[in-house]
Amino acid sequence: MTAVDRWTLPADRIPPAWFNVVPHLPAPLQPPLHPATRQPVGPDDLAPLFPMALIGQEVTTEPWVDVPGEVLDILRTWRPTPLVRARRLEQALGTPARIYFKDESVSPAGSHKPNTAVAQAFYNKQEGVTRLATETGAGQWGSALSLACALFGLECKVYMVRASYDQKPYRRVMMETWGGSVVPSPVDDPGHPGSLGTAISDAVRDAATRDDTHYALGSVLNHVLLHQTVIGLEAKEQLALAGEGLPDVVIGSCGGGSNLGGIALPFVPDAGVRLMAVEPSSCPTLTSGRFEYDFGDTAGMTPLLAMYTLGHEFVPPPIHAGGLRYHGDAPIISNLVQAGRMEAVAYPQGTVFEAAVQFARTQGSIPAPETAHAIRGAIDEALLAKEEGAERVILFSYSGHGLLDLGAYDDYLHDRLEV
Amino acid sequence: MTAVDRWTLPADRIPPAWFNVVPHLPAPLQPPLHPATRQPVGPDDLAPLFPMALIGQEVTTEPWVDVPGEVLDILRTWRPTPLVRARRLEQALGTPARIYFKDESVSPAGSHKPNTAVAQAFYNKQEGVTRLATETGAGQWGSALSLACALFGLECKVYMVRASYDQKPYRRVMMETWGGSVVPSPVDDPGHPGSLGTAISDAVRDAATRDDTHYALGSVLNHVLLHQTVIGLEAKEQLALAGEGLPDVVIGSCGGGSNLGGIALPFVPDAGVRLMAVEPSSCPTLTSGRFEYDFGDTAGMTPLLAMYTLGHEFVPPPIHAGGLRYHGDAPIISNLVQAGRMEAVAYPQGTVFEAAVQFARTQGSIPAPETAHAIRGAIDEALLAKEEGAERVILFSYSGHGLLDLGAYDDYLHDRLEV
Repeated sequence: MTAVDRWTLPADRIPPAWFNVVPHLPAPLQPPLHPATRQPVGPDDLAPLFPMALIGQEVTTEPWVDVPGEVLDILRTWRPTPLVRARRLEQALGTPARIYFKDESVSPAGSHKPNTAVAQAFYNKQEGVTRLATETGAGQWGSALSLACALFGLECKVYMVRASYDQKPYRRVMMETWGGSVVPSPVDDPGHPGSLGTAISDAVRDAATRDDTHYALGSVLNHVLLHQTVIGLEAKEQLALAGEGLPDVVIGSCGGGSNLGGIALPFVPDAGVRLMAVEPSSCPTLTSGRFEYDFGDTAGMTPLLAMYTLGHEFVPPPIHAGGLRYHGDAPIISNLVQAGRMEAVAYPQGTVFEAAVQFARTQGSIPAPETAHAIRGAIDEALLAKEEGAERVILFSYSGHGLLDLGAYDDYLHDRLEV
Repeated sequence: MTAVDRWTLPADRIPPAWFNVVPHLPAPLQPPLHPATRQPVGPDDLAPLFPMALIGQEVTTEPWVDVPGEVLDILRTWRPTPLVRARRLEQALGTPARIYFKDESVSPAGSHKPNTAVAQAFYNKQEGVTRLATETGAGQWGSALSLACALFGLECKVYMVRASYDQKPYRRVMMETWGGSVVPSPVDDPGHPGSLGTAISDAVRDAATRDDTHYALGSVLNHVLLHQTVIGLEAKEQLALAGEGLPDVVIGSCGGGSNLGGIALPFVPDAGVRLMAVEPSSCPTLTSGRFEYDFGDTAGMTPLLAMYTLGHEFVPPPIHAGGLRYHGDAPIISNLVQAGRMEAVAYPQGTVFEAAVQFARTQGSIPAPETAHAIRGAIDEALLAKEEGAERVILFSYSGHGLLDLGAYDDYLHDRLEV
């Protein structure tokens, strides 16, 4: 075997514009509603928290949005990311399917999250904001924003769920290495273990009460998914380099939906391409939730979003894929699933880690527990193709590496994993 | 600024042959001596531990050694690695120097170590060996060999220094995820904290007493440095793509010497290129050691090597750059330093971590403590160039990331670092 299984692109071939899926959605997006009046929110409602450029991107219907040069300059320090054919995994499965993955783990923060963190930091700086506040659970988003703030010279304040702050210090250290200031949440109750809900409340309050500070969100919102479309746009170009046409199915793990949106949205106009969300069966928003207006946070401070939700007071069990423990989903993802344009499946974490270890032992890289959900989905699609003798092309997003999640592998390998 | 600062190469442009520096050395290499007879060791002495192909590579004077296709197929799942211009670091330093680094952190194990682990696993498998035994300190080498064994279907047994096994479980988990079997060393004394010396003894004894098992070493030996020359060979080609001629200086951190050899050896014939080793001042083999025959291990079981050494009973303090805590150096590196073809500098770890954090906050990526030694050296060369107003080209090896070393950053950032 002397085949080439990895496609890079020169650094000047990074996409110059983000793809806006809104004009291509099967049904119009329902607007976010004000938590008090239940009327659609306007730009003025959001101005204390976000810069006008991002508020504009949240509602734009333009088909493409230019990526600023300053953002491209940062992104291209690790982008375009490689597209890899998982040929050794295919061989282990004995499948006629060809499996490709887009490797977003090569960013300095180890995941896809910096794609939007860099853009958000840029637009805030451009409007004169000097400090950003955000929340983080296990720490992936907080570390991405700390990185972006370091690169643009902004201060970064991260409210980290206290249980994670105490038990998983490594992502806290990562944020501090980039100069971020990290405090456990809730700030006013040292005995409370915290939750994403308390941390959002702390961060929003910080941003709302300081003139120099805005708030930044790492998933769910339209502008976040917009920034992530570089993933799918590059993958399309690289699949062509690999001699493939369109893939048969595009797969992404789904928490809030930014990773899944990033890989899948550029394929929405390609009617023959199946799109698939993979979620944990312990937090089955798309497969068992209701489609309705609900709050984004536990405390009910945010606008109401039209989405699949398990209820804003739902508390998922403490699975290792912390990034997938969200009670709702991005309105764009919810729209696609409701219209039948996107499928969704849910897996328990035992079978997810089984896929993760099979991937590590064939392809080499150790995936994040979140990412392993997409790998499980891709493996099952490849096994189905084997059963049917079908030569399918499967694309999934390798959204992050698992090097800060090795404790979870320890539990799995030594039979301590709660299923 | 719209410059491209990162050069990839297509996966089929990986070097097809390793560069053998031996014909280019300023003086002949002195042969290893048998520990009992003090006569030069022959192939038969080494046959219980290594496959004949590697024993042959250890003494070859051929200028190039072909890389087997099976090895290329594995290496190109992450190689060629990127060459990156550290333009944001240059700007922070205000230097006219152009700083390039070769990013070896993108391998699944996170360092340059798999370059030789894959080759060693292949040659052992080719000779019918089904199991490899090795030692590891902090775990970088053990994880690289576990990875390589997983990819070739070999069993892997790793004797890990007990203090690391107990205190730093994450690399143990990494090895286990790849199917490696890891035990604390010394195996026969559970109360002993262990050392690289005890672990080498355990691994050599294992290999010498089992027919199905060979031993594998991750640094020091000629064949190990040979396998690492892919680093420098690719960097040469990528510097040309970047529009540069030869660099003015090539810098690598040096423990046993495999990373430094990898980046520097292909430049040995280029007389105008300065070569520089950077080591910790707590283990200053090249800057304060004696050049003489010494044992490779603490127990005195290995052949005697002609090298710079602090004495095989020297125990360095427990600095965070565990991969640089070796009492000796590769004979090839020692030969170059003794002849004046290579320079060496030593730094205390406080100033090394200062460089690491400056790098992380400008370039984004968080380097391994070992790698940060080379960064310190590169920054100081760049500052010297600034002082002299000289437009120099600096190349260094970014040998690994620091994502499993964040505890060290925690100590540095919170003033708990022992200097």
